[in-house]
Amino acid sequence: MQTIDLNCDLGESFGNYKCGMDEEILPCITSANIACGFHASDPLVMQKTVRLAKENQVHIGAHPGFQDLVGFGRRNMSLPPSEITAIVEYQIGALQAFCTANDVTLQHVKPHGALYNMAVKDASIADAICEGIAAVDPDLILLGPAKSQLILAAKKYGLHAAREIFADRAYEEDGSLVARSKPGAIISNQEEALTRVIGMIKYGTVTAITGRKIEVEADSVCIHGDNPAALAFAKSIREALQAEGITPMPMDEVISCV
Amino acid sequence: MQTIDLNCDLGESFGNYKCGMDEEILPCITSANIACGFHASDPLVMQKTVRLAKENQVHIGAHPGFQDLVGFGRRNMSLPPSEITAIVEYQIGALQAFCTANDVTLQHVKPHGALYNMAVKDASIADAICEGIAAVDPDLILLGPAKSQLILAAKKYGLHAAREIFADRAYEEDGSLVARSKPGAIISNQEEALTRVIGMIKYGTVTAITGRKIEVEADSVCIHGDNPAALAFAKSIREALQAEGITPMPMDEVISCV
Amino acid sequence: MQTIDLNCDLGESFGNYKCGMDEEILPCITSANIACGFHASDPLVMQKTVRLAKENQVHIGAHPGFQDLVGFGRRNMSLPPSEITAIVEYQIGALQAFCTANDVTLQHVKPHGALYNMAVKDASIADAICEGIAAVDPDLILLGPAKSQLILAAKKYGLHAAREIFADRAYEEDGSLVARSKPGAIISNQEEALTRVIGMIKYGTVTAITGRKIEVEADSVCIHGDNPAALAFAKSIREALQAEGITPMPMDEVISCV
Amino acid sequence: MQTIDLNCDLGESFGNYKCGMDEEILPCITSANIACGFHASDPLVMQKTVRLAKENQVHIGAHPGFQDLVGFGRRNMSLPPSEITAIVEYQIGALQAFCTANDVTLQHVKPHGALYNMAVKDASIADAICEGIAAVDPDLILLGPAKSQLILAAKKYGLHAAREIFADRAYEEDGSLVARSKPGAIISNQEEALTRVIGMIKYGTVTAITGRKIEVEADSVCIHGDNPAALAFAKSIREALQAEGITPMPMDEVISCV
Repeated sequence: MQTIDLNCDLGESFGNYKCGMDEEILPCITSANIACGFHASDPLVMQKTVRLAKENQVHIGAHPGFQDLVGFGRRNMSLPPSEITAIVEYQIGALQAFCTANDVTLQHVKPHGALYNMAVKDASIADAICEGIAAVDPDLILLGPAKSQLILAAKKYGLHAAREIFADRAYEEDGSLVARSKPGAIISNQEEALTRVIGMIKYGTVTAITGRKIEVEADSVCIHGDNPAALAFAKSIREALQAEGITPMPMDEVISCV
Repeated sequence: MQTIDLNCDLGESFGNYKCGMDEEILPCITSANIACGFHASDPLVMQKTVRLAKENQVHIGAHPGFQDLVGFGRRNMSLPPSEITAIVEYQIGALQAFCTANDVTLQHVKPHGALYNMAVKDASIADAICEGIAAVDPDLILLGPAKSQLILAAKKYGLHAAREIFADRAYEEDGSLVARSKPGAIISNQEEALTRVIGMIKYGTVTAITGRKIEVEADSVCIHGDNPAALAFAKSIREALQAEGITPMPMDEVISCV
Repeated sequence: MQTIDLNCDLGESFGNYKCGMDEEILPCITSANIACGFHASDPLVMQKTVRLAKENQVHIGAHPGFQDLVGFGRRNMSLPPSEITAIVEYQIGALQAFCTANDVTLQHVKPHGALYNMAVKDASIADAICEGIAAVDPDLILLGPAKSQLILAAKKYGLHAAREIFADRAYEEDGSLVARSKPGAIISNQEEALTRVIGMIKYGTVTAITGRKIEVEADSVCIHGDNPAALAFAKSIREALQAEGITPMPMDEVISCV
Repeated sequence: MQTIDLNCDLGESFGNYKCGMDEEILPCITSANIACGFHASDPLVMQKTVRLAKENQVHIGAHPGFQDLVGFGRRNMSLPPSEITAIVEYQIGALQAFCTANDVTLQHVKPHGALYNMAVKDASIADAICEGIAAVDPDLILLGPAKSQLILAAKKYGLHAAREIFADRAYEEDGSLVARSKPGAIISNQEEALTRVIGMIKYGTVTAITGRKIEVEADSVCIHGDNPAALAFAKSIREALQAEGITPMPMDEVISCV
């Protein structure tokens, strides 16, 4: 049986500010990356989101980011590795409390925004993140893109890793994402995006931006759910998977199938 | 054997700002209340303080407060009980991450500042705090003053409770603290303070502000360590305890002795 | 000519979080209360909102609140008066910078949320606010409800005051608002609300919750614009005013007409 | 008459956290760079510091930084230029309120920490800062190092600029500071530092790290006052200036003398 995880960022509301369509996207996904209060979310939102995920049998991951609420964690910040380890530990622990309180197990960690992007390319940041994860709970899965320092760091620290693919992004020949600033980086044609996702899961291949077919390893698809169009596209992905006989499953089960 | 815990607030530095004399006070105490990033502290300070406490065989407690850094958590804020529960869970979880990373067990929870003072008198706030503690880890000990809503709430939620006494504070006849605004609320004579502490531990009695002798139950003494005078007084307490044959011990051991 | 100001809270978005329907409500109002970064807003939002207000010939006021972003400034906080004065001065100054940069004059100050509600009843808080306003710019108008400590404090500090009325709130016989917790506090029937607003402006009277007709002084109507229903109601008010020959005008002009 | 300004960062305390020796350093300096609440300080601290500066006849400047309290504004953050302009305007305005309230005029702006360091080398950041200053008050002086994008940007935006020198830093041949990471970057010998300062002011020259004598333009000396050693060194500088007949003077007067 072919399986795939579908992950989505959730719990990004903050106080009086609502953000995302969490209730609508939850039935479409199998793993949720829940913000931990540094770049988005607050304790009440985290608690509510953990409960919602549980009710939908969606597995839970921590989504730690830089402490930059006004920038939504999307701006590069130059922190020493020891502080990155500490902010990752802090945020995982905070979310674990709500998991424990709701009797569910934390499944994975996916760094957010600028922290994610920096860690993809910078081994010292990727190491700092994985050191924090391993210190708090070595059973947690690191979620990141296949060809990245994050996945290499996970191995170094003895962590399970899940590799995510992107429906709306072009790939370089080495399997890394084409930088958003380059032309052709974004796949805006939804049918093409769907075909690429299915190809990556079913055959483990995708056509790179150069035109050459390359190999891609996929444990999870990154889903967006913050607007009606994203929600509709998420539903299309689920339908396409079903048509192809690919079973959506939380990433811990996908990985243990391998 | 007569035993007593000595607790002190620790880890109140923040980023570039140093606060407290943590390294100097640690050898004097048996339990540390570590700030969790809402009213003071940050992830790096928490990590360092947990390590320091462990090296000194001092047991660790979470010291959650209101999210009011500029006010140091000392200003009353009107939060709904559900949010108090959530901020307590969040802060306990964050500190637990550093305990796990350093292979020590979190022992207790002592609310900080305005949250502590409000919970002493307001059952709904005390309940909200204890609900959060019980949800995250029902083995955690609630630390509060003997005659308070906090201790009542702990019982209601099935938590162990440790009752703390204050060397520098006068007591009402009902065992509650005399409000700071009233004359005579603060015991500034250090010798008198020492005598009162020893009396409360050894005989379970103290002279109330009315002059009447009242009964007091003491599992822990609240120690200050944020300035040289407080540090010197902490050392005097330790010497006085030794002279009286009272053994300082972390609060989980004091309680299990009972 | 009968005139009235229509004021509305604006610029409450924050970073990635959108809030309110500023562009849609601006054509309906004459004065905007712009959040200053403590309970909502950020420098970019403030700059954009000042520009938008200017383009719509809407006069600008500062809307200072408690530093409680997660609580949107709606939770009571116990600050000493000197600190209230300081946070009011800080927030007015920050907004003035954007007014200066856009070549408009700051017209008024309306405290936000819990700060407003506390100041309505507590003379020391009202005084602290007006002291801050007078220190930064004695030409600023204080906007508050007619029967309140805020208006009394404005007089004490030599400030002009504008008195606002509420379409959706019931009044006590003394002209103060009926507490939200009491039955009948909210006027949910929109036609009744419209009739009351017109009556208060045109005849200076309204029927109190007791059934007795009382006198009300009105310089401004508090308008909501954070959802489509509120927007529609704002438009109804404008139409009703026009039908009655009452001219909407910024509050500095309304006041100088008197 | 030869004159020189002596500037120092002040008002860096925050809430319960004390930082710096403001009262002691004030008699030694002529211009104070006051933190504005983003990387340090709070409204009460700003108010108190403005009053203290005024009492000491020290002229006042805004010291805006990144919104990164835990990092003290010392960590690079990648903000778009429009947001840098906005945070500079916001912070200048906030400090101006306290200047107005205390009847003093804001003299200058010196960016803080990472914002300063980034602006020294990056023209788009330097421009963004100067655009903000010019928009709020074109009479404000920009304070920065002589050979920097900051000084170039000031000219571009029609601002007066004051050029500061550093007693404890080595210079490259082009007049820029030697990066801290390079050997020899810090002048730790205090006598040598004093001699260099006097030479830069009196003769407009200094020996670069290469050994070659270079020209340096100096309107102000950057003084540190956050520890007893720094304070003692500040006093030595004042004495050395007096011995050489160089008169300390606020930077607006130094500049208008030229």
